[in-house]
Amino acid sequence: MAWSPRHSAGRRLQLPLLCLLLQGATAILFAVFVRYNRETDAALWHWGNHSNADNEFYFRYPSFQDVHAMIFVGFGFLMVFLQRYGFGSVGFTFLLAAFALQWSTLIQGFFHSFRGGYILVGMESMINADFCAGAVLISFGAVLGKTGPVQLLLMALLEVVLFGLNEFVLLSLLEVKDAGGSMTIHTFGAYFGLILSRVLYRPQLEKSKHRQGSVYHSDLFAMIGTIFLWIFWPSFNSAPTALGDGQHRTALNTYYSLTASTLSTFALSALVGGDGRLDMPILESKLKVQDTCGVHNLHGMPGVLGALLGGLVAGLATREAYGDGLESVFPLIAEGQRSATSQAMHQLFGLFVTLTFASVGGGLGGLLLRLPILDSPPDSQCYEDQIYWEVPGEHEHLAQGSEETETQA
Amino acid sequence: MAWSPRHSAGRRLQLPLLCLLLQGATAILFAVFVRYNRETDAALWHWGNHSNADNEFYFRYPSFQDVHAMIFVGFGFLMVFLQRYGFGSVGFTFLLAAFALQWSTLIQGFFHSFRGGYILVGMESMINADFCAGAVLISFGAVLGKTGPVQLLLMALLEVVLFGLNEFVLLSLLEVKDAGGSMTIHTFGAYFGLILSRVLYRPQLEKSKHRQGSVYHSDLFAMIGTIFLWIFWPSFNSAPTALGDGQHRTALNTYYSLTASTLSTFALSALVGGDGRLDMPILESKLKVQDTCGVHNLHGMPGVLGALLGGLVAGLATREAYGDGLESVFPLIAEGQRSATSQAMHQLFGLFVTLTFASVGGGLGGLLLRLPILDSPPDSQCYEDQIYWEVPGEHEHLAQGSEETETQA
Amino acid sequence: MAWSPRHSAGRRLQLPLLCLLLQGATAILFAVFVRYNRETDAALWHWGNHSNADNEFYFRYPSFQDVHAMIFVGFGFLMVFLQRYGFGSVGFTFLLAAFALQWSTLIQGFFHSFRGGYILVGMESMINADFCAGAVLISFGAVLGKTGPVQLLLMALLEVVLFGLNEFVLLSLLEVKDAGGSMTIHTFGAYFGLILSRVLYRPQLEKSKHRQGSVYHSDLFAMIGTIFLWIFWPSFNSAPTALGDGQHRTALNTYYSLTASTLSTFALSALVGGDGRLDMPILESKLKVQDTCGVHNLHGMPGVLGALLGGLVAGLATREAYGDGLESVFPLIAEGQRSATSQAMHQLFGLFVTLTFASVGGGLGGLLLRLPILDSPPDSQCYEDQIYWEVPGEHEHLAQGSEETETQA
Repeated sequence: MAWSPRHSAGRRLQLPLLCLLLQGATAILFAVFVRYNRETDAALWHWGNHSNADNEFYFRYPSFQDVHAMIFVGFGFLMVFLQRYGFGSVGFTFLLAAFALQWSTLIQGFFHSFRGGYILVGMESMINADFCAGAVLISFGAVLGKTGPVQLLLMALLEVVLFGLNEFVLLSLLEVKDAGGSMTIHTFGAYFGLILSRVLYRPQLEKSKHRQGSVYHSDLFAMIGTIFLWIFWPSFNSAPTALGDGQHRTALNTYYSLTASTLSTFALSALVGGDGRLDMPILESKLKVQDTCGVHNLHGMPGVLGALLGGLVAGLATREAYGDGLESVFPLIAEGQRSATSQAMHQLFGLFVTLTFASVGGGLGGLLLRLPILDSPPDSQCYEDQIYWEVPGEHEHLAQGSEETETQA
Repeated sequence: MAWSPRHSAGRRLQLPLLCLLLQGATAILFAVFVRYNRETDAALWHWGNHSNADNEFYFRYPSFQDVHAMIFVGFGFLMVFLQRYGFGSVGFTFLLAAFALQWSTLIQGFFHSFRGGYILVGMESMINADFCAGAVLISFGAVLGKTGPVQLLLMALLEVVLFGLNEFVLLSLLEVKDAGGSMTIHTFGAYFGLILSRVLYRPQLEKSKHRQGSVYHSDLFAMIGTIFLWIFWPSFNSAPTALGDGQHRTALNTYYSLTASTLSTFALSALVGGDGRLDMPILESKLKVQDTCGVHNLHGMPGVLGALLGGLVAGLATREAYGDGLESVFPLIAEGQRSATSQAMHQLFGLFVTLTFASVGGGLGGLLLRLPILDSPPDSQCYEDQIYWEVPGEHEHLAQGSEETETQA
Repeated sequence: MAWSPRHSAGRRLQLPLLCLLLQGATAILFAVFVRYNRETDAALWHWGNHSNADNEFYFRYPSFQDVHAMIFVGFGFLMVFLQRYGFGSVGFTFLLAAFALQWSTLIQGFFHSFRGGYILVGMESMINADFCAGAVLISFGAVLGKTGPVQLLLMALLEVVLFGLNEFVLLSLLEVKDAGGSMTIHTFGAYFGLILSRVLYRPQLEKSKHRQGSVYHSDLFAMIGTIFLWIFWPSFNSAPTALGDGQHRTALNTYYSLTASTLSTFALSALVGGDGRLDMPILESKLKVQDTCGVHNLHGMPGVLGALLGGLVAGLATREAYGDGLESVFPLIAEGQRSATSQAMHQLFGLFVTLTFASVGGGLGGLLLRLPILDSPPDSQCYEDQIYWEVPGEHEHLAQGSEETETQA
């Protein structure tokens, strides 16, 4: 049961030193570059004549908190389905997201809210940082159980930069609409992770195959994650949209789309499963990708599909359908600068750009993570918490006798 | 350990075909009849001169999300207390609620927001649909573990229609007040489920008795459900009430009522339990109802009690107590169209109507669910996930050796 | 396995009678003294010409619900890490918080919103009551598993009074700022509990040492608590602050502080842990305090540190930094009634007052809880649910056979 430590002294220090280095550098960059925006700064907000009720906080904070719960509770517990990787799933979600939130505030801030030498932050920075963390966690899902925390932090370091760059190209240069983050979050996060996982391909991974399954209670924990992602999805999609009818409509559309998808999923699962019983559809990958969480089905294909539908919707946009609301949904069409068809072409080009950034970035990330000095687990110790975590009872368990086991079970 | 499949090919297809049929029909009805209301439609909202801050979204969405968490996390996990029915509890909650949300949007829409041939939807539709799903899940609690997913979907198909009809009679024809959904949700859902469970009475249910209990960790999962229902109850009661003081007061009253109930429950539990230890009060039913979740105690009796108190409060309503707020609480009394006593009589008649709809509907539902072609589990396989779900480790578990068992326990 | 009941008839009645007594007295005091405030009362709110959108409900309710989730889900599940004390952790959290919410509404109301012989309540009362419950639960963490429910209720009865008194001295008499409740909640709750635990010192506690650890799934439940406390902390700190930029800025600062703390914690944990693996830093107490949940590290030291930083920030406050917002952050400095240095001195004196109240109160509480008539568990039965709760399977488990055990594990 006891696992003999293989970390040399040098390796032992990798994780704490990397954490301290990243946190120290981030703190310095925050001190130098980050400032409150008008809605958060005491002096700026009280200058002029606002009603406190107009502060953006009240229009976005409830949705933000829902998104925040999705990132940490939703993603964290979704990945607990592995029978022996619950600490890694929740714990590394914490570590990656905590770093990504800070790092993406800097990266996204440079691209989107850099004014007079300063990055101005407020509620929107927090929502956007959570979105970027979501993309990183989608990629994490593809390599779950096969990578160490040092590798994961380096992945996040690279991915956040490319996420910010891709987002800037799409939203600011191409001026495409990215409803629900189909392209910037789901497609980018999924293919970045999948390509990275492909580069890290382990031919001997079946040595850890017995740990790849779930157990009864680990599946129930994973359902907590699933439900939190499901119930707060309307907030995820509506958190950053235009105030008023835009936010309202987005939440409502997401709500009904999710219910319809759920019935369809049950139908498909019962058709595919043995004996007509229900299960998550299992589509075995033929491409040597080793996609632990099924990221391709969960985020990759739906993201691409969403992007294509987004192109279609743009191509069909008319003033008849949107009225004066067209201005807030497709401003360039409303102002006559682009035809609906041209907007649709820009949307499709945005998808191409996203796939390119994700693939090249994921490839580079994979090469970086293959550096032998890093903390990659051996093939026989994948999907196993004990290699990175103190697990209760690992030494004393057998000695404690069978009474406890039977009582807990 | 292995369970031999008893589904014929015809039975295997029942669930997927029913899901696809219901989803297809619902989608068509949505396309034909459902439209955005003024607060969600881009053209309608931007026509005229509104401040985005006035959109109803901002007054109701946070409460809606709390209600949504109650329906899926609260009800879903509340029922996980059964040791071998966690997948069924959470999974069928998902299935039933996902269907009920759509179906009740149509049914409630026809009764309450049908304008010019269209059902207009917005935030209130979503809140009301979640309430109706709550009633369906209360009924689910009465038959938990003794019914298959096809039976449950048919139950929801019928119950949502009768829920909408009962609600229409009470709120629109009788113009009664139904604080907290005492009548339309709790009383209706409980007695519909209880009568249905009575019709499905199984004399041989003790064959599954050994699975009816909980285990240590299944009880902890059930506590997650309990807590979510408890903490968000103020949002449940206040989500649909009048804006301003009405919503504020309802949340506050619910909050303090819950704390007082909690201390009383601890006192009762310690009095009733063996050795003075704490337990959920166990009131064995003498009426052959086989009420898995104790729906009668949780929702039935409290719902009736709430309805009676609602009648009492209406009978005592005076302008002195409510001031100009009387208009928003009891408008007919404020406008002199009804005396307080007359309002109280209407309230009590509303309770009678609800019990009638629930009983007749539950009886019909029970007869429908007794059709032998449906997917009812055998007496010896009640409260058992394996009959409907792929359960991890069911085939290979013994072969995996005892090490895993002891480590997980 | 079976545990022979040691409760005499007299002891069996202690808990239900105390619950009924406390609830009865609280209900009477509510009926006599508690009234709706202007924002919740129908007559008062509709008197005059308000927009419903101005009701404080909409500015504070979403944050309140987050705080409420922290108190019950966060604290409740945080303490489930003990392998055999899950029911006690969640159940006694419920009991203590339900009582503290009501009792502190009365106590805090007498000190802060007593007008014309009545305590006026609204959203702020609910937020403040939840804060006080938070302090009680912090103290609970120090004595978790070593005290019975009667002892805990008596602790809460005393602690809530002293909490209210300390808060009144600090906020109303000394007019100090207490950002995030550093002094009134964290410092007070931690040292009240620690001193109380010291007075209850058990030299023979190692008889229960084998139950003091966690098991794999109990740690995952505890992570649910941890995450809920973490994600909603921005709401906790911003719920009671000034509307507008104040609330916005507080949420944002908390958000980024938490992410930075997380990376630092991972670094420290990896440095301290054996083999470079991650664990909660274990700082063994040398002071005979027996602090079950590590309350000193979690709340005590951080609370004191926060108080000292609060003093520093006050000492450095200038109109240049805050602009006209200085009025809402440090009104006495803005109005010229105090210098920044004087405000800083008041802050430090507030910390001294808090430590005094907590120490004397915790000492008195400990003496009270040592009364031999109370329901203290024996040294060999600490950290054990069975002494206070009906635990599923405790009698029949062995008879059920091994099949269930292996399947569940």
